[in-house]
Amino acid sequence: MVKLPHPDPISGADYSAAELTPDDATLLLLDQRRLPREERYEHVSEWQAAAAAIQDMIVRGAPAIGIAAAYAMVLAARQARTDYWTEMVAAGAGLRAARPTAVNLAWAVDQCLELARAHRASAYVDRVDAMAALARSIHRDDVAANRHMGRLGAGYVPDGAVVLTHCNAGALATGGYGTALGVVRAAHAAGKQVRVLADETRPFLQGSRLTAWELAREGIPVTVIADGAAGSLIARGRVDLVVVGSDRIARNGDVANKIGTYPLACVAKQHAVPFYVAAPVSTVDLGTDSGEAIPIESREMQELTEWSGRLVTPPGVPAENPAFDVTPAGFVSAIFTERGVVTPVSAENLARVVEYETGMETGNRE
Amino acid sequence: MVKLPHPDPISGADYSAAELTPDDATLLLLDQRRLPREERYEHVSEWQAAAAAIQDMIVRGAPAIGIAAAYAMVLAARQARTDYWTEMVAAGAGLRAARPTAVNLAWAVDQCLELARAHRASAYVDRVDAMAALARSIHRDDVAANRHMGRLGAGYVPDGAVVLTHCNAGALATGGYGTALGVVRAAHAAGKQVRVLADETRPFLQGSRLTAWELAREGIPVTVIADGAAGSLIARGRVDLVVVGSDRIARNGDVANKIGTYPLACVAKQHAVPFYVAAPVSTVDLGTDSGEAIPIESREMQELTEWSGRLVTPPGVPAENPAFDVTPAGFVSAIFTERGVVTPVSAENLARVVEYETGMETGNRE
Repeated sequence: MVKLPHPDPISGADYSAAELTPDDATLLLLDQRRLPREERYEHVSEWQAAAAAIQDMIVRGAPAIGIAAAYAMVLAARQARTDYWTEMVAAGAGLRAARPTAVNLAWAVDQCLELARAHRASAYVDRVDAMAALARSIHRDDVAANRHMGRLGAGYVPDGAVVLTHCNAGALATGGYGTALGVVRAAHAAGKQVRVLADETRPFLQGSRLTAWELAREGIPVTVIADGAAGSLIARGRVDLVVVGSDRIARNGDVANKIGTYPLACVAKQHAVPFYVAAPVSTVDLGTDSGEAIPIESREMQELTEWSGRLVTPPGVPAENPAFDVTPAGFVSAIFTERGVVTPVSAENLARVVEYETGMETGNRE
Repeated sequence: MVKLPHPDPISGADYSAAELTPDDATLLLLDQRRLPREERYEHVSEWQAAAAAIQDMIVRGAPAIGIAAAYAMVLAARQARTDYWTEMVAAGAGLRAARPTAVNLAWAVDQCLELARAHRASAYVDRVDAMAALARSIHRDDVAANRHMGRLGAGYVPDGAVVLTHCNAGALATGGYGTALGVVRAAHAAGKQVRVLADETRPFLQGSRLTAWELAREGIPVTVIADGAAGSLIARGRVDLVVVGSDRIARNGDVANKIGTYPLACVAKQHAVPFYVAAPVSTVDLGTDSGEAIPIESREMQELTEWSGRLVTPPGVPAENPAFDVTPAGFVSAIFTERGVVTPVSAENLARVVEYETGMETGNRE
């Protein structure tokens, strides 16, 4: 039952967080708010609607919103009929503002703007063609990066392992395949028995809705737990390793990720359970010194106080809803990237891996 | 707007988790599953229905289910028209089985059975009268104990403090006033500015529904957060102290409490934020050596996989739902009881406080 209206999705699966139609006219976004109940694609033809979709979490996950933003810049190029450069800059600013924490969004927009600048004097068709080619290559590279870091990370997953993860760092959060779940997929593909414990991940329930959905679809055993249950399962020796994704990694190796990640890392360290982060190098922000400088998005309190529009809390009681937290580098056993594994996690080791250019894009594709 | 159909509730408030009507015939249970939306009392006249109400979490919270069980033993005494002792033993066993982790339930049932044994040959009316008097004194003592430990604990709450709590250890979880929230109430009553951060506490949402309800009703500022957000707020210096209740404290000071408590304690320790437990001595189980020996209740997976009867997770994906976790004694800064403060937490200090008989019941009542 293929519901993705695209003949040849780059995601490599029969679903995808974001794809551009072959005519470059429409960005297809799987509406992740409706999963697992309904598998429905939004058809977006203007960058403004794409920015709103990113903000509303129709598409979420740091690499996926980077890709969606790149495709949105293609839509912007199609929309820009008068002052190309000015309109592209405006689109870039609008997309960047949609979500502040994930650096991949800014990273993708910057690449698109660089290309737009080079094409300020080009013909309309050439500008759009070039932008579409760039966006698709960003998408393709992300999937390839995921597969490569998955294989590297899988070397750290013992046969028979129980892997705990938080939020969704899977195919749905990326171009396809996934970062943290890419590691799980690669271990599974290598014939290892792996079982996943998925934090439900309040308030948006990325774990119980999205991680559970994509793993169940793939036949990888998954059990949902309350976020608060992870600590005691780690303490009782029920977890062999933790692996999560990231929205931004500072130069010193501090990791921003979905709210609730840091307490996991804290308990894992207490019990000497390895705590791994899987993320493409586009997540590393060498311009941010440490976690303290990473902007943390605050989201609407309604995500906590309401359920399907119905009030859960007493009327008038406020909620505070930070979307991310920061795990200091010292709590991270290793960072898996497409350019290699960073361990121990230090500014020096991280810089060495980020700046190392592998032949991955040409040589290591599956 | 008083909805509690009782002329003189022992709880000391205009609501109560459990009260026995003056004619000893009906146990009134505030249906906590319906809060904060609806304030409705169940009218229970048989101990079997009381056991079901405890299991279904119509009434919850370790001290409150102890009191409800004592009142249920009054109903059992009224029901026992033939073989009093045998019927009381059966009722005691049925009530004990309703929830395994909280020791207060077994503690209350044991006291009632001791009385029943002494009254095996008494007249029906005397048996019932004596049981009702015992149950009400258990309830009264719990409220007095809460008030006393609240005053002791309030000494550890600085003026202007932000207090983080998990689950609901308030008036709704006890005979009235509360353990952890009793500490907050006492600090507030002493004129201190206190503000509460309440973990929403998945899956049952005792924090966003119950703690928020009772604090808002009392005019104490409360803000709801996701369970996963507590760690980063502690790390960012936003929390001055953590205080929680307990369902069972082992002889060595290990503390069983609502799932999600242990990761809080772990992060609090990491950042040198005090982590306090408030519990009556009836919560201390000297017969259990350590936390490892505390039975941990597993509840139905539907608490995680469904919301209002509607599936949240993909069909067929299982969930695991342990209701409690254990925080080792070494993570607890102090335990507040009605007989004194245990600090540092050790088997020796705990035994000294538990075995010390204060004149509290006669001398220190407010």
